[in-house]
Amino acid sequence: MATRVDAAKLERLVSDLLVAAGVPREDADIVGYVLTKTDLRGTESHGTARLSYYYLHNVRQGLINPRPKVRTVAEGPSYLVLDADNGLGHPVAYRAMQRCLEKAKESGVCCATVRHSNHFGAAGIYAMMALEHDMMGLAFTNSQPLTIPTFGRQRVLGTNPIALAAPAGVELPFVLDMATSVVPIGRIEVYRRRGEQVPHGWGADADGQPTTDPDRILEGGGLMPLGGPAESGGYKGYGLAAMVDVLSGVLSGAAILNGVLPPRLDRSGDANVGHFLMALDVSAFRPVDEFRETMDSFVRQLRDSPKAVGQDRIYIAGEKEFLTEQDRRANGVPLNPVVEEDLRGLCHDTGVAWPF
Amino acid sequence: MATRVDAAKLERLVSDLLVAAGVPREDADIVGYVLTKTDLRGTESHGTARLSYYYLHNVRQGLINPRPKVRTVAEGPSYLVLDADNGLGHPVAYRAMQRCLEKAKESGVCCATVRHSNHFGAAGIYAMMALEHDMMGLAFTNSQPLTIPTFGRQRVLGTNPIALAAPAGVELPFVLDMATSVVPIGRIEVYRRRGEQVPHGWGADADGQPTTDPDRILEGGGLMPLGGPAESGGYKGYGLAAMVDVLSGVLSGAAILNGVLPPRLDRSGDANVGHFLMALDVSAFRPVDEFRETMDSFVRQLRDSPKAVGQDRIYIAGEKEFLTEQDRRANGVPLNPVVEEDLRGLCHDTGVAWPF
Repeated sequence: MATRVDAAKLERLVSDLLVAAGVPREDADIVGYVLTKTDLRGTESHGTARLSYYYLHNVRQGLINPRPKVRTVAEGPSYLVLDADNGLGHPVAYRAMQRCLEKAKESGVCCATVRHSNHFGAAGIYAMMALEHDMMGLAFTNSQPLTIPTFGRQRVLGTNPIALAAPAGVELPFVLDMATSVVPIGRIEVYRRRGEQVPHGWGADADGQPTTDPDRILEGGGLMPLGGPAESGGYKGYGLAAMVDVLSGVLSGAAILNGVLPPRLDRSGDANVGHFLMALDVSAFRPVDEFRETMDSFVRQLRDSPKAVGQDRIYIAGEKEFLTEQDRRANGVPLNPVVEEDLRGLCHDTGVAWPF
Repeated sequence: MATRVDAAKLERLVSDLLVAAGVPREDADIVGYVLTKTDLRGTESHGTARLSYYYLHNVRQGLINPRPKVRTVAEGPSYLVLDADNGLGHPVAYRAMQRCLEKAKESGVCCATVRHSNHFGAAGIYAMMALEHDMMGLAFTNSQPLTIPTFGRQRVLGTNPIALAAPAGVELPFVLDMATSVVPIGRIEVYRRRGEQVPHGWGADADGQPTTDPDRILEGGGLMPLGGPAESGGYKGYGLAAMVDVLSGVLSGAAILNGVLPPRLDRSGDANVGHFLMALDVSAFRPVDEFRETMDSFVRQLRDSPKAVGQDRIYIAGEKEFLTEQDRRANGVPLNPVVEEDLRGLCHDTGVAWPF
């Protein structure tokens, strides 16, 4: 059973542990916010579970720069180009999005690219920053190669996510946050641990052939792009993953394809992850009230449309995550025993007090 | 056997036929360009085959306004909001993209929304307009409902395409142009005509259950979003289709979801299609030479990565279409007998000379 813990305390704990590793408090607070918000939304795969192995140990071992000098490479009324100086991905992406929101308030639209960054967690968190400003937010990032292109057999593309957030009125906002692979690699690992076969189309073996055997996917094989094999549209998922890399990697000047190194400790250089962020000020395009009303109508028409036999609910992108967040804000964030032990160990090593 | 015809003459024929129906020459030329370019690229489903039933008959019957007064609803250095006055989709989208390219040259980035428009053909053509300006182009549109949302059983979403074009150096540009359904409805019709079952995951029946029977998909059922059923990631394709409608329909103030009427003659009002177009000036973000070199490297790394057993080639988005265009520019555009008869009939009715 996972213990349920208070989100604010968890957020502070993440920040304290990063500060203990040499990260400035302002940056550490942003990482704490992003990882805890991700846990609140139920995306544990990208939350505090990743703190030690994706971020903290990397900082301690000198693989991530704890005190980067983020450089503005270029800037205009509707664009921004940042070099993250190999710092943590969350603070630089968060601040890039903040600046996009400020600029879009003036110019209607702003896009930011970030190069020389690191894994920034869940893309949706940055897209959602737009919501309270009556804006739409978009966030893309490239990532370590895990996905096989259509007709290939090597992991060349990341799971390169696409996130878009749009505010509604009385309904919940629309928040799409999806990897461009069919499933994340962690899902395959879960099946392996259970000794089960995965559904057809999730992954391929070392020959590039679809397989349901998680061992063959994880060892020498890889994930299939959204759509699965070519016949069922996998070339579209492959195209989307590539599109995200063109925006996040090529346009930013970061690494591309399997030049993006994994957020692990055995890597041979900087991960050089690239991000692409965008803010669209709704009021430049339509009166905000009208937009919100139309979004409400959009959500309701989807939700109220007839259900498939055997189904009683049509979900809107982000809806499940909002419901999870409501529950977890009230009842605490579940901390699974492995993550709890990991965090307790970090507290022990650094002298940070265990807050729960 | 399809006759092969000269592309320039085909383009002029389309324009002449539209002029004969009351469309101004400048607008008719744009439709001619877009439809012929689409045929050249091998996407016949969106080319001149659609001229009569999607556009020309609609104009003649007063369903599409041949001489719209396109209104600029709002404009800033990096955005543009147009009302198409129920005119043809191609001229307004083409000009919206032209203005985006001009504005992006000044401001780095420009987005345009278009409301009260009609079916604009293949989204990729507009995205590709950016290529000769050293820019990236994006184009989205909503469209008549054909796709069933995950856990639903009614056609609520269009096949809402996503297109992105990015220039390379010596390699071909990257041009993604994809519907967010697994396949277009026309593909299901082809299987029905052949009396064959479609692959699993392409469509669902009137109960929202996956079926391989094209009759059950076409009559009362619908297309599945990219990814197919929920288990294989269909909720992501559903989310992408919805994202395109949020940008093209909600943000523009056009119709949304199944409020978008089909480009057929039996519709009960204006189609009220919405588009979203965007230009990103590469030089705002990176020196263009560097960008082009990285794109070349991106294309080569994908193409040269190891092939799946039984495959000898990995394609880049848009590559097949460029090869098709090269062939067709040299050897003519194949005109299938049904389309040829249709166009000959239109010539006969209007007194436009048959040019081949």
